[in-house]
Amino acid sequence: MRSFVVALDVGGTSMKGALVDQVGTVLHTERRATPRAHGPEAVVKTIRAFITHLTRLGDTLPATPARGVQGGPNRPARSQEQSGLVGVGLIVPGIVTSDTAVYAANLGWRDVPAADFTTLDVPVMLGHDVRTGGLAECVLGAGRGSPDFLFLPIGTGIAAAMIINGEPYGGATGWGGEVGHIPVLPTGEACACGQIGCLETYASAASVGRRYSIRAGRPDTRAEQVVSLARAGDPIAVEVWNDAIEALSLGLASYTLLLDPILIVLGGGLAEAGPALTDPLRERLAKRLTFREAPPLRPAALGVNAGMLGAALLGWQAAGHPDIGHTWTVNVPETPPVP
Amino acid sequence: MRSFVVALDVGGTSMKGALVDQVGTVLHTERRATPRAHGPEAVVKTIRAFITHLTRLGDTLPATPARGVQGGPNRPARSQEQSGLVGVGLIVPGIVTSDTAVYAANLGWRDVPAADFTTLDVPVMLGHDVRTGGLAECVLGAGRGSPDFLFLPIGTGIAAAMIINGEPYGGATGWGGEVGHIPVLPTGEACACGQIGCLETYASAASVGRRYSIRAGRPDTRAEQVVSLARAGDPIAVEVWNDAIEALSLGLASYTLLLDPILIVLGGGLAEAGPALTDPLRERLAKRLTFREAPPLRPAALGVNAGMLGAALLGWQAAGHPDIGHTWTVNVPETPPVP
Repeated sequence: MRSFVVALDVGGTSMKGALVDQVGTVLHTERRATPRAHGPEAVVKTIRAFITHLTRLGDTLPATPARGVQGGPNRPARSQEQSGLVGVGLIVPGIVTSDTAVYAANLGWRDVPAADFTTLDVPVMLGHDVRTGGLAECVLGAGRGSPDFLFLPIGTGIAAAMIINGEPYGGATGWGGEVGHIPVLPTGEACACGQIGCLETYASAASVGRRYSIRAGRPDTRAEQVVSLARAGDPIAVEVWNDAIEALSLGLASYTLLLDPILIVLGGGLAEAGPALTDPLRERLAKRLTFREAPPLRPAALGVNAGMLGAALLGWQAAGHPDIGHTWTVNVPETPPVP
Repeated sequence: MRSFVVALDVGGTSMKGALVDQVGTVLHTERRATPRAHGPEAVVKTIRAFITHLTRLGDTLPATPARGVQGGPNRPARSQEQSGLVGVGLIVPGIVTSDTAVYAANLGWRDVPAADFTTLDVPVMLGHDVRTGGLAECVLGAGRGSPDFLFLPIGTGIAAAMIINGEPYGGATGWGGEVGHIPVLPTGEACACGQIGCLETYASAASVGRRYSIRAGRPDTRAEQVVSLARAGDPIAVEVWNDAIEALSLGLASYTLLLDPILIVLGGGLAEAGPALTDPLRERLAKRLTFREAPPLRPAALGVNAGMLGAALLGWQAAGHPDIGHTWTVNVPETPPVP
């Protein structure tokens, strides 16, 4: 039997679980639906059952000689009653500290302690979704070796993981990183948050699609289509994409002037645009910074697995191995869809 | 003889020195002109001579029973050759790390090591001007007990000390905290830095004075006069002051959304405006934050002495007492002007 952690990324729609050993091998991945409609306690119960299920599964896996810190061939074999589970890393939505799910509007949670998420006798560490993805990019991904950088996933919304002194920083109360709502164009368009000119209202994938759909009278155009149309010279698409780049350059200029990151790692769906995003953004950002260099832009390395891998790191941190991961090479099996 | 540190705040025009003992008593303060016109090495030489002079002076001070960590009555008396100097804390302009003055445009310095600033055999710690003031406000002043806050001195320019996990944070390369140049009104007025709509170009004391002077045709009106005129209903002053508050509310909203400070400490000349600044700014900032509370605004506690007291803390840190200061009560004698 080998040692492993359960890594769980709990979203509003589904939760993605994984078993990860001490050398970073992802032994198994699995998805379950999040029973949000059944109320806050039902979600907690489902998480408990999912962790127990994954642990049982992990304990049936064949033993392999471990290359890592523990569970190696020289370690005495465990009795059959012992589990290989050493820790749980759990990403939960909303405001979160390492030991409490403080507030999650979409799940109805308030101050749920980490220990409530499992009936097993094992340490649990909680993490914020974007910040835990940032931790993974820091330890395993595009930010490896860069203790001070920005991880910016641009998807339906825009939030930031600010990596400061080698760790994700969430602010004084866990509300930090809300870069999507900084007022980059304060005389501009209204945001769903009630404010004017937020970065997110111009530059999220959802906003790029929405702004084009409205202007062009073509409902439900997606951001990646807008990027293609802009490349082909569609004037409305060019304008919408240009606004997104402009808003991003303003937001990244403010971030850079304040926090002086060594590097900006772009992730999320919109980063799939590649050079169509990074080339004009790099140029615009450099122009906005007159007395200092712009930090380089780099694509995220871990894609959709950043959260799960970050949760695995949290699980190993909970198990008393805070520096694990730096020697891992990452190899993630494809996750089957929610059954 | 008692133990003391030399604290030195080196500005472009003058340098302010002090002797501070282990319980925070400011034993002596003194100013010298910064011989900037004589070149980079002349300034370093003047600093060396000033430190030696202050040390000699400190060694002639009468011994008093110390209340603190060392040098107390039970400590064996030093021989006459020994000095009471245990460390030097030195604030230098520009980009700085704790052991190197990396770059100071106004003094012509590049990569000057800390040890170059004294011929005495004593540890030296360097600090950035605003961040060292922030350290003092954190340990001794308005941010006492708040490990995550913003110290914002608003003077001729605007820079920030971002206090993160109890320490001033300067970014990956020491260029952090340039809040004065975040583009708060990107379609607005040109800033001296070459960029458009920087916070500083609307809201620094210099800009408030300049913008009123130009609009009203009354050259050299100072910011405090603009505040008085605005209070009396002068429409141009009202507009200029309103623009400053608007720009500050945008900058502080961006800072709050990103860094989630527990508190914002306002310092510098413009903070002397008191409620004329804080009342409308508090209201505007709250309006700009739709899904979270605004952090409270608080005036700085240490005024012009923040830098010197921070330098004293750095000197004691250099001497191996990183946690000194938390029990100090501050009492600063008036500094005589440059002779």
